[in-house]
Amino acid sequence: MTVLTSNGHPRRVRIVEVGPRDGLQNESTPIPTDIKLQFIEKLAAAGLRDIEATSFVHPKAVPQLADAMELARQLPHRDRVTYSALVPNAIGWDRCLQSGIERIAVFTAASESFTAKNIRMTIEESLSVFAPILQDAARRTFTTRAYLSTCFECPYEGRIAREKVRDLAERLIDMGAGEIAISDTIGAAAPSDVMDTVGFVLERVPADRIALHFHDTYGTALANVCAGLQLGIATFDSSAGGLGGCPYAPGAAGNLATEDLVYLLDRMGIETGVDLAAIADASSVIGAALGRTPASRNWQRIMLSRRANTIG
Amino acid sequence: MTVLTSNGHPRRVRIVEVGPRDGLQNESTPIPTDIKLQFIEKLAAAGLRDIEATSFVHPKAVPQLADAMELARQLPHRDRVTYSALVPNAIGWDRCLQSGIERIAVFTAASESFTAKNIRMTIEESLSVFAPILQDAARRTFTTRAYLSTCFECPYEGRIAREKVRDLAERLIDMGAGEIAISDTIGAAAPSDVMDTVGFVLERVPADRIALHFHDTYGTALANVCAGLQLGIATFDSSAGGLGGCPYAPGAAGNLATEDLVYLLDRMGIETGVDLAAIADASSVIGAALGRTPASRNWQRIMLSRRANTIG
Repeated sequence: MTVLTSNGHPRRVRIVEVGPRDGLQNESTPIPTDIKLQFIEKLAAAGLRDIEATSFVHPKAVPQLADAMELARQLPHRDRVTYSALVPNAIGWDRCLQSGIERIAVFTAASESFTAKNIRMTIEESLSVFAPILQDAARRTFTTRAYLSTCFECPYEGRIAREKVRDLAERLIDMGAGEIAISDTIGAAAPSDVMDTVGFVLERVPADRIALHFHDTYGTALANVCAGLQLGIATFDSSAGGLGGCPYAPGAAGNLATEDLVYLLDRMGIETGVDLAAIADASSVIGAALGRTPASRNWQRIMLSRRANTIG
Repeated sequence: MTVLTSNGHPRRVRIVEVGPRDGLQNESTPIPTDIKLQFIEKLAAAGLRDIEATSFVHPKAVPQLADAMELARQLPHRDRVTYSALVPNAIGWDRCLQSGIERIAVFTAASESFTAKNIRMTIEESLSVFAPILQDAARRTFTTRAYLSTCFECPYEGRIAREKVRDLAERLIDMGAGEIAISDTIGAAAPSDVMDTVGFVLERVPADRIALHFHDTYGTALANVCAGLQLGIATFDSSAGGLGGCPYAPGAAGNLATEDLVYLLDRMGIETGVDLAAIADASSVIGAALGRTPASRNWQRIMLSRRANTIG
């Protein structure tokens, strides 16, 4: 049960770092495995305990993550840090079982059109693929999450009905998913959408089984986090340096930046156990490898203030 | 009296565009007067009705705005659009009276240290400078606002006590200021600060006399706007393209970008009367003159989507 403060916010928030998977999979510049491992090592050292490290998707589908097995086997051991991987199908599940990773995520969406284009299945088909994986994972005491994409807006269908999101979230819980990551895949949601849709889901699924996953395409991600906090949600996804931006759009935003999330929560007196400056250092590693300035206000501010201190 | 929707938000928000003044005064690249006029013309054409056009500060203090009189006399006439200017002292007020501008803003802060460094006065001294200006302005049926800077965090003093903000806001109203712009000058506030401080001010000053002025340095500006909406505030300042960023920090954020504010309000079904794409076009004019990509997520998104449409 989540502990709430007097203003109704959770006292502590769990951050799920998705930069190495959701962030990097959208980056076309190939990143060597040892740079990814350095990045992940720094993320863990900064206090992040839930790190989505890679995906056992077909190597040709996402060449950036073709090194999933090699990476998984070299992940740094740290007390209380767990690594997860995306598992898209039975083949990916077999690979995962050989990798040593013990937390998995499966993936569907609240929009039929998006599911069709993204994973070439209907939503029902995707559920039938995941059901045996979730069952097997439970038997082996893996922890699991299910991503539910395009919960607010679909690039093909527009606004998504909250009934669709609630029903799918409930079914995924019934299928054994430990938590549901309600995701704003294209980053279009405003806090009113979060209140409306997530509030509706909460009628059937308890808050401590829900994570919120925002992208910052339209700049609304932190505002959406605040709406989630007001609803009592205490798990949020983010990506160090806002990784995941469209590679042909300099400065375009991807996932909510971990730095920006941590700044907000620190300022609001909500514990995360994460060190903001150390996250910025992790982002610098991957920013240098991508040849790009991280799309995080707080990364920029921290680096600027360090430069000013060096000059002064 | 502000009309509220069923969720307690104002149904309509008034946006005060401060790009030509607060934005440009922080930009070191000199902008020719005719470019500023093009910028302002486009802002007005986009539906903005309150535009802070310039400042009658001493020309040597802010060389960028040394053309205040020349600019003011050429401002495009448009139905229901009013232009305002910052008036720092009696000399500025005399200049303003010759300029044709009929809405003014005066300027103080909730932090003594900031006031000392910024305008070389104590807060009390600044009030004694503004009192006769506000009186004279009222007699001439000018509309007036008072900026109250560093209401949440001061770069020299840290957190600001909400009592200080409430007392100063109340005194400024008593002195005749039409509205108080409660400002987060360094952009450090989180929604919890807004709830705490602005909620406290509302015990003495009605919501329709308060404007909120956020900077996006830490990425929290839109989240703070949402907190303001929940408190029933219906006037927000913003700056087209997020103008006002630190000129030696590429991508560093300045004022909350008007594009981002309009996107949020559009998505939440709150009327503004402002056309988002047209604001982005205005920002492009000034971005080109500054040789910089505007620091607005939505500007970037709009331009990217246009490019994709052109290519496709």
